[in-house]
Amino acid sequence: MSEKIIMDCDPGHDDAIAMILAGARTSHLEILAVTTVSGNQAVSKNTRNALNVLDIMGKGEIPVSMGASRPLIKEPSFAEEIHGVTGLDGPKLPETPRHHATPHHAADVIIDAVKNSDEPVTIVATGPLTNIATALIRDAKIVQNIKSITIMGGGTFGNWTPTAEFNIWADAEAAQRVFNCGARINVFGLDVTHQVLATDDIIQRFALINNDVAGFVVELLKFFKSTYKTYFDMDGGPIHDACAILYLIKPELFKMQHTHIAIEHHSALTYGTMSVDLNNVTDGEKNAYFAVDVNVEAIWQVMEQLLADYNL
Amino acid sequence: MSEKIIMDCDPGHDDAIAMILAGARTSHLEILAVTTVSGNQAVSKNTRNALNVLDIMGKGEIPVSMGASRPLIKEPSFAEEIHGVTGLDGPKLPETPRHHATPHHAADVIIDAVKNSDEPVTIVATGPLTNIATALIRDAKIVQNIKSITIMGGGTFGNWTPTAEFNIWADAEAAQRVFNCGARINVFGLDVTHQVLATDDIIQRFALINNDVAGFVVELLKFFKSTYKTYFDMDGGPIHDACAILYLIKPELFKMQHTHIAIEHHSALTYGTMSVDLNNVTDGEKNAYFAVDVNVEAIWQVMEQLLADYNL
Amino acid sequence: MSEKIIMDCDPGHDDAIAMILAGARTSHLEILAVTTVSGNQAVSKNTRNALNVLDIMGKGEIPVSMGASRPLIKEPSFAEEIHGVTGLDGPKLPETPRHHATPHHAADVIIDAVKNSDEPVTIVATGPLTNIATALIRDAKIVQNIKSITIMGGGTFGNWTPTAEFNIWADAEAAQRVFNCGARINVFGLDVTHQVLATDDIIQRFALINNDVAGFVVELLKFFKSTYKTYFDMDGGPIHDACAILYLIKPELFKMQHTHIAIEHHSALTYGTMSVDLNNVTDGEKNAYFAVDVNVEAIWQVMEQLLADYNL
Amino acid sequence: MSEKIIMDCDPGHDDAIAMILAGARTSHLEILAVTTVSGNQAVSKNTRNALNVLDIMGKGEIPVSMGASRPLIKEPSFAEEIHGVTGLDGPKLPETPRHHATPHHAADVIIDAVKNSDEPVTIVATGPLTNIATALIRDAKIVQNIKSITIMGGGTFGNWTPTAEFNIWADAEAAQRVFNCGARINVFGLDVTHQVLATDDIIQRFALINNDVAGFVVELLKFFKSTYKTYFDMDGGPIHDACAILYLIKPELFKMQHTHIAIEHHSALTYGTMSVDLNNVTDGEKNAYFAVDVNVEAIWQVMEQLLADYNL
Repeated sequence: MSEKIIMDCDPGHDDAIAMILAGARTSHLEILAVTTVSGNQAVSKNTRNALNVLDIMGKGEIPVSMGASRPLIKEPSFAEEIHGVTGLDGPKLPETPRHHATPHHAADVIIDAVKNSDEPVTIVATGPLTNIATALIRDAKIVQNIKSITIMGGGTFGNWTPTAEFNIWADAEAAQRVFNCGARINVFGLDVTHQVLATDDIIQRFALINNDVAGFVVELLKFFKSTYKTYFDMDGGPIHDACAILYLIKPELFKMQHTHIAIEHHSALTYGTMSVDLNNVTDGEKNAYFAVDVNVEAIWQVMEQLLADYNL
Repeated sequence: MSEKIIMDCDPGHDDAIAMILAGARTSHLEILAVTTVSGNQAVSKNTRNALNVLDIMGKGEIPVSMGASRPLIKEPSFAEEIHGVTGLDGPKLPETPRHHATPHHAADVIIDAVKNSDEPVTIVATGPLTNIATALIRDAKIVQNIKSITIMGGGTFGNWTPTAEFNIWADAEAAQRVFNCGARINVFGLDVTHQVLATDDIIQRFALINNDVAGFVVELLKFFKSTYKTYFDMDGGPIHDACAILYLIKPELFKMQHTHIAIEHHSALTYGTMSVDLNNVTDGEKNAYFAVDVNVEAIWQVMEQLLADYNL
Repeated sequence: MSEKIIMDCDPGHDDAIAMILAGARTSHLEILAVTTVSGNQAVSKNTRNALNVLDIMGKGEIPVSMGASRPLIKEPSFAEEIHGVTGLDGPKLPETPRHHATPHHAADVIIDAVKNSDEPVTIVATGPLTNIATALIRDAKIVQNIKSITIMGGGTFGNWTPTAEFNIWADAEAAQRVFNCGARINVFGLDVTHQVLATDDIIQRFALINNDVAGFVVELLKFFKSTYKTYFDMDGGPIHDACAILYLIKPELFKMQHTHIAIEHHSALTYGTMSVDLNNVTDGEKNAYFAVDVNVEAIWQVMEQLLADYNL
Repeated sequence: MSEKIIMDCDPGHDDAIAMILAGARTSHLEILAVTTVSGNQAVSKNTRNALNVLDIMGKGEIPVSMGASRPLIKEPSFAEEIHGVTGLDGPKLPETPRHHATPHHAADVIIDAVKNSDEPVTIVATGPLTNIATALIRDAKIVQNIKSITIMGGGTFGNWTPTAEFNIWADAEAAQRVFNCGARINVFGLDVTHQVLATDDIIQRFALINNDVAGFVVELLKFFKSTYKTYFDMDGGPIHDACAILYLIKPELFKMQHTHIAIEHHSALTYGTMSVDLNNVTDGEKNAYFAVDVNVEAIWQVMEQLLADYNL
């Protein structure tokens, strides 16, 4: 039986890969909706990218709804250094996607999809948490029909600042609200995502898969690898957001620890830092499951299988 | 011609008086909707109070919609010391009001009312700013059809903490969002509201007005006076929220200064403090009109006239 | 019998006047030492000014010792807009004073003077609290022989920022340490000092006193009045620092309230804000006596008498 | 030629080991002074421990001076869970050491030792940075004759809180001041110290060294191992402070990265967090050399050699 998910995202190279993996035939995930948020790029660009990615996946029927154009409280800023001017630089994509976004706001779509589902829904969050916080602010009771909020974000160290990861830093107030909402929360932070680097070797493995979607993924990973080399001196792009989807598909890929997580949203220096109490040194309630380890080679194998689905 | 207003409130003694003044025949204000927010008491209590107050005013047809049950980010807390267990202690009110609240969320009501109005709408905010921030988060474009956001809150000193006033302190993140939204903002803080104290003299003047609504106001003011004596050692309850409505009815009652206002939402010690740059010592943009003085005796006279309207 | 005081200051126009009043024959204050701190200007300039002022007072024998050249933790900044390039613009003063500062650090001088005094010593602080905090950090036991720390600083509103007064803002970490030290603390903030404005009328009264010291004070007040007009649009310079000395000479000039005071040193927006719990709304311990009112006309009369002392 | 060092510490098991390594004949370090600070335990206990350790080392002639009994600004707290009631639980030590501490304050000793040395002095800081900050506050010019401040503290993750290491957390204001002082700063944080765990294997290797000092070290490590097991579920005590000394003795044991470090001292949640800009994502000036890796086996070999010195 398939698990119903909403993908709230800001594609973004790794968001796009997460979408593709989720949409593979054998993922056993049913994407109810894709919702977009200001993050890697402006929300309008992220929305266009989401539409284009779904089209490439042959899933143009999945509704895309645009959400927040800025964080809850602070001013917006983007990760153009990493994802380029379009938010999905690298592959050549149509200026005007074949489908249109719905006229509904992402937060409303999340609320309605969760409330109207006959089984609990998983929200996969691979961008800043603004839309999800907005949905919770608007209707806190949706928590009752949320199976989990499965997040790529944070970690015990940072990338956008020395101590903060981009998605959490981009809207730490939203993150604080989400982490306190009472739903089951799964977190895939830099501790694991920086282990799954798509180096040349990995890209070559994916290049052997003979279908257009895998070819698109290869183009994404090549661009991502180049910006990660320039900006972070890393030898491959981390497939960050894909981890959240891969966990839903195959939980045993990751080792999770039930722990207390709080989000720094008061200090300028450490804004967006995720405080993860792995050693139980605080009195904080255990409010999240945090990925502490990952089976890297198994990740690549599962990805190969999922991408190969698109041959059919 | 009448000005269209939405009253976003947490009645609350002074909120109730503000509603009554707004609903007076000669106020020339048209109340499109009353929306309620967590603040002086739990939002469900504030909603019941709003319904009861409208009923007393003979305005049961004005729709009441319940909004946020907690602040955007932080945990909720109430001002029970000041407004009692019901949020409107003093007068005897029915447990079950004659009318019901609409099924719509306050933030949606605000968005729809503003968008659908053929003329700009004034939002009168006499509680924490959570609903209004939620509406702005959900649809920032409503600013284009907002005439003003007219707020009771803040000041250059505090009441709930040494430096913070209750409405702003109750949701400083929401306040920060509202003050940065770009709409015209009018602010009535403690600097003026603590000048308009309903002492015994004033209460006696109102008691001479021979109608039920004025009688209800007298009961409210008597209770309010007693808690202000106990809690703040003041000789009368300040008619805080009424100031916002009185300004709309008769702007010349107040002296306003165009200034820069920012809201402290990072520090535990000074959370909710309103930084009002009356001396132009910062580089901040002038984003609000702040009431620096009030014609106290004229206030009482205008109130007497408005309350007398209910004789008719 | 005279009270022994150490004047820790950053002269500064109002510091200079405070020194002059303290040194008057009938003040019954014995100035054990003058210590200087970074504040209105660089500490070297403030030291030169202190030496020159003592010389004008005919008190060149009082030792002056230079202290901190910057705040405890944050970077230094000065109030040149108010006190000019020299820190004491207006009167013509010698580039090289007749006496020299001692080779000792202000903090050491404070420690030694307090420890070696056979009766408790009052520390009068009319600049940032860096030296006094340093002395307390270095030897917390001096508190046992401190009669009071009598401070000009803070208030329930600000001048340097909308919510913070300059002396506290200039080193809020130092202020926090001093307010928690356990000594008796008297605070003269803007609430009272902005009531004692040396307008033209007052300056003319002082000009009638026929001695060089009063003439010097008149020059100081004229310059101070001009910068307060330019920068704050006020009609006279507040004799801020003089209040601390006038209280020691004649306590009944002020109405003091025993209260809890805490200093904001965490937030950028409200850094240096003094939280004064005049309404007892916090659980904080009463750690200071805060001046809530002043007898303005009596202040001017006492100042006239003290300045007239210099005729003799 | 030997390098002159001052050891500012709060012994403390790992401080004691650091002292012992520094005092070994072949360390080529000359300990000018040992100064003690509030940290692992109250400063009086840390001072007694320092005296006892020097006596065990046969170095009772090295002067010990007691310093700060609390942090610069915040309230004190200790690490009794880790180091026990005495601060050096495990070995049996005399209640009254054979030598006495000097009557001088640690900060004065640091200032004098640095100023009076004919060659630049290295300050080794293995406790909270209060004394060193106090010395810098008191006389910033000592930086000119400081060869380096070599610190055990911080890291890119925490132990005392999820994000903060104890020494930095214990006085983050002091740390911020020290990191901005302009001296060469070497930092050995948890990134390296948590790699050098004295497990049973290591303890057994040290137990083979046939002298009393090595025997004392073995007792310290056994106790330390037990508390680290209980409190952190680690299989050996990290020899934290020893790393700072081992670097001075043999720099090639560590890989250092020149980087920008800032200290969080504003937020309650992340107070004491060290922001280490290893990826150059901030504009901060490179103000420290941070240990990013360590040759673990080489560490144990060097320690064996140094401990064997005490046979002679």
